[in-house]
Amino acid sequence: MSQNWQERSRPPRLERRYEFESYQALREFLDCAAEISERDGFYPDISFGRDYVNITIHADEGSQSLADKQRRYAQILDELCPPAITA
Amino acid sequence: MSQNWQERSRPPRLERRYEFESYQALREFLDCAAEISERDGFYPDISFGRDYVNITIHADEGSQSLADKQRRYAQILDELCPPAITA
Repeated sequence: MSQNWQERSRPPRLERRYEFESYQALREFLDCAAEISERDGFYPDISFGRDYVNITIHADEGSQSLADKQRRYAQILDELCPPAITA
Repeated sequence: MSQNWQERSRPPRLERRYEFESYQALREFLDCAAEISERDGFYPDISFGRDYVNITIHADEGSQSLADKQRRYAQILDELCPPAITA
């Protein structure tokens, strides 16, 4: 998992912000993330505007800490949808 | 503009929440909204998870009220990406 992910508490979560030079690149990134979600059945909260995407991965409901599966999704996203292809 | 849009203040904005029965339907809706954004050069804030999408249309920066172009985007979204095709 890259250091671009910020681990935060209350509630426990991982967050990463991406910025894009074009809306087309942003859409390609969103498609890539959605493909992973469908494949793995894991759906983070995603927000976006014209040139940014924020991804928030929450811990399981009721849990006070992040689990391996949350970190794994972040890692897979880093591997399969790298910022290099989204700039 | 449908009554599903909520007009809120501080900051002035229009909001609408959509719910979806499938992630595929959700993705089709996001694609539809993105097509309109690209066509019209108008980019609202969009957030989504597994089964919901929230769209927030802010007033122009520094403005205390919504303008026609913000309401027009909501209206166009209602017309071109109706909930009927997203359920």
